[in-house]
Amino acid sequence: MNRPIGIFDSGLGGLTVLKVLAERFPQESFCYLGDIARLPYGNKSPETIRRYGLQILRFLKEQNVKAIIIACNSASTVFLGEHDFEGIPLFNVIEPGSEAALNVAKDSKVAVLGTSATIRSHAYRDTLKKLNHSVEVIEQACPLFVPLVEEGMVDDPITEMVAKKYLTDVLAKDFKTVILGCTHYPVIKQDLKKVLGPDVALVESGDVLALKLEHLFNNQAKFSANSQRRIRVCITDLTDHFERLAHHLMHPIEIESLEKIVL
Amino acid sequence: MNRPIGIFDSGLGGLTVLKVLAERFPQESFCYLGDIARLPYGNKSPETIRRYGLQILRFLKEQNVKAIIIACNSASTVFLGEHDFEGIPLFNVIEPGSEAALNVAKDSKVAVLGTSATIRSHAYRDTLKKLNHSVEVIEQACPLFVPLVEEGMVDDPITEMVAKKYLTDVLAKDFKTVILGCTHYPVIKQDLKKVLGPDVALVESGDVLALKLEHLFNNQAKFSANSQRRIRVCITDLTDHFERLAHHLMHPIEIESLEKIVL
Repeated sequence: MNRPIGIFDSGLGGLTVLKVLAERFPQESFCYLGDIARLPYGNKSPETIRRYGLQILRFLKEQNVKAIIIACNSASTVFLGEHDFEGIPLFNVIEPGSEAALNVAKDSKVAVLGTSATIRSHAYRDTLKKLNHSVEVIEQACPLFVPLVEEGMVDDPITEMVAKKYLTDVLAKDFKTVILGCTHYPVIKQDLKKVLGPDVALVESGDVLALKLEHLFNNQAKFSANSQRRIRVCITDLTDHFERLAHHLMHPIEIESLEKIVL
Repeated sequence: MNRPIGIFDSGLGGLTVLKVLAERFPQESFCYLGDIARLPYGNKSPETIRRYGLQILRFLKEQNVKAIIIACNSASTVFLGEHDFEGIPLFNVIEPGSEAALNVAKDSKVAVLGTSATIRSHAYRDTLKKLNHSVEVIEQACPLFVPLVEEGMVDDPITEMVAKKYLTDVLAKDFKTVILGCTHYPVIKQDLKKVLGPDVALVESGDVLALKLEHLFNNQAKFSANSQRRIRVCITDLTDHFERLAHHLMHPIEIESLEKIVL
């Protein structure tokens, strides 16, 4: 029996993480929970995010997952430093993202883009400073990026205009390493690159988590090459729009089961 | 004892309605419920919107309200035709908004702007056609308007660019009467007017509801001129951002009590 890896996000943005992991670990099963009924988390208070997050961790535990990844940055900020949920290894995106950014940033300058909740928490800044106290950090909330992604406005002049507004400081202060501190942002990577130019490195959660998990699963020899893997996507609300978006974000990887659940 | 009027919205947009009513009915008390923890409703399924809506109607009933106004258009679509909740008069914004638009539209052409949920429901189109079967209706979902309002991007070139995108059809087909089918939209009225030009009439929920209630309260002689009125705003999540936005939207009317409640 191949126990699934649990992934939790406020919506469908975390599918960008699931997709990377599903490609890197073709034998692993996944159970994804997207809390679409209550998204976005990015403008909620820490108390509310934690209350909703605990409901979801309990749900994933009931699905018998062997590890839980909090793909949502806003939720990661309220579970920072917690690496275990009732006996299940717990991963967030802030700590591995910060490590990866410091490896890339030769000039010790890191810019962080995120939702209002993520930026307000200063979780990235504090984690980066803990790893390297001399690092220079700027943080920028980009609250319109999530709705733009959800409306499919990729490679769009409006998205570019919004990006220019948010990235003014990053450009003016010549930061060359930028953490995409929200799982939605990789979807508009090309729009961001157009504004930032070719020599700015973008750090994405999916890639960083894949490295982290490789280490864990290799060490524990958990791969089971003969078992059939299953990709299950559970969401707390279902509309045609989100169904299309889910398949689009995961393409070409197939979602075997897209289920609506009530938390 | 002056029983309050209950107003329910998915977030703070309904404060544009509360403000109009509080100005028109200076003796009336109000209890507002904004379901900020779970906003926006505009991209949720009808089942989820109804489930959340019933929780809120029950909450308002417990606050001893004498009438309930569903200010949220997305929620109004799932309670259409229901004018009573457990003995309490229930108002939605779709029916009075449609009547008002038909009074204005001499050419029998009405455009409706709303969230994805409101437009998908065709509640305005169906109500308008029921009132006047020869009316010509176009419906346009404007999902980015709510986040733009919530980010305070009023009188902003980005908002104007988004408005131009959404209003292409309204302009091309020469519609002169436009229902603002979401309580957030009056906040960006000036941006919309700039795109639509001076001879397009915008129909707003707040004004229309005020007329409707005047009729009700006059008939029942419910005004109590000597009692002190109270404006209570309850929200399901509280951040500094929303607190500032609430006071900004209600200015110059004072909110006496801004409370966080858990549903």
